[in-house]
Amino acid sequence: MEPALHPDVQALAFLLGTWRGQGEGEWPRGESFRYGEEMTFEQFGEPFLLYAQRSWSPDDEGPIHFERGFIRPGGPGRVELVLAHPLGVAEVAEGTVDGQLIEVATAAVSLSSTASPVSELRRRIEVRNDVLSYELDMAMADIALTSHVWARLKRV
Amino acid sequence: MEPALHPDVQALAFLLGTWRGQGEGEWPRGESFRYGEEMTFEQFGEPFLLYAQRSWSPDDEGPIHFERGFIRPGGPGRVELVLAHPLGVAEVAEGTVDGQLIEVATAAVSLSSTASPVSELRRRIEVRNDVLSYELDMAMADIALTSHVWARLKRV
Repeated sequence: MEPALHPDVQALAFLLGTWRGQGEGEWPRGESFRYGEEMTFEQFGEPFLLYAQRSWSPDDEGPIHFERGFIRPGGPGRVELVLAHPLGVAEVAEGTVDGQLIEVATAAVSLSSTASPVSELRRRIEVRNDVLSYELDMAMADIALTSHVWARLKRV
Repeated sequence: MEPALHPDVQALAFLLGTWRGQGEGEWPRGESFRYGEEMTFEQFGEPFLLYAQRSWSPDDEGPIHFERGFIRPGGPGRVELVLAHPLGVAEVAEGTVDGQLIEVATAAVSLSSTASPVSELRRRIEVRNDVLSYELDMAMADIALTSHVWARLKRV
C-alpha cells in the first residue's frame, strides 16, 4: 500500500508516476540524435521524491544515459535536485517550482577523477495535459552552456 | 536478456545482485539503532554498475534512508562511487578495490541549501562467502568522523 504523500512534497506531486517518450539532442561538433526516454518519480511518505531516468537508442534499445537521485522541496516555491550520473558527476541543482513548471540550475557539481568535465546543467521540466516536456542545457569545461537534449514524455 | 558484462567492470562483478539483511548504527548523542537494508548492484553492459540502497525500520518497515548512484572503475585497483542521498547530499567517493574488498572515502561532497551538513563519508564493502559486510563512517560539520552504521547482507 502506498503511504500518504508527505505535505512538504505536495507542490511536486504533479510529477509522480512514470513518463515515457522520445527526445532529441545535439552537441557542438556532433550530429543531432534521437533517443527513447523514461522518467519515474516515486514517493514513500517522506519529504522528497525519488527520481530515476534512463534513455536508450531508438535503433537497438541500448542504454544511452541514466540519472538517479532525489527531488526535495527547498521552501516555498523552491526545489532542490540531488543527482548522480554514470559519467562520474554528482550534481546539486536548485531553482523554482511554479505551478507545474520546474526550472533549476547547477548549484554545485562534484566530479570523480575520471569523470566527463560537466560544469553546469540547467533543466526545465513542465507538465501540461499529462505530457512532461523536458529541456536540458549543459556546459563542459571547454564548451559554453548550450541546449543539449529535449524530450516529450507521456504518463504511462 | 542481460547484456554481457563490460570488461572494465569485471573487477566489480562480485557485487552484482541483490543483498538483504540487518544493520546496526549509532551516532553521537543518539541511541544505537537497528535497521533492515537492501542493496542492489546492476549492470547494463556499460562501464559502470548501477547502485541502489534502501533501509527501513525493523518495527514498522517505514523507510529510513535511500542511496542511488553508480560505481565506476577508476583505473587498475581503483574505484569511484557517485551517489545521491535524499538528505540533499551529492557525493563522489574514491578508493581501492582489492579482491572482494572496496574501501572508499569522500573526494568531494556537494550540499543543497537545506541539506544535512554531511562533510565526509568512508565506506568499506567486503564480500565473503556470499555475505556482503558494510561499514560506513560519517562526519558532519560539527561532528568528527565516527563509525555510523554497519550491516551484514546476504545475497537473495
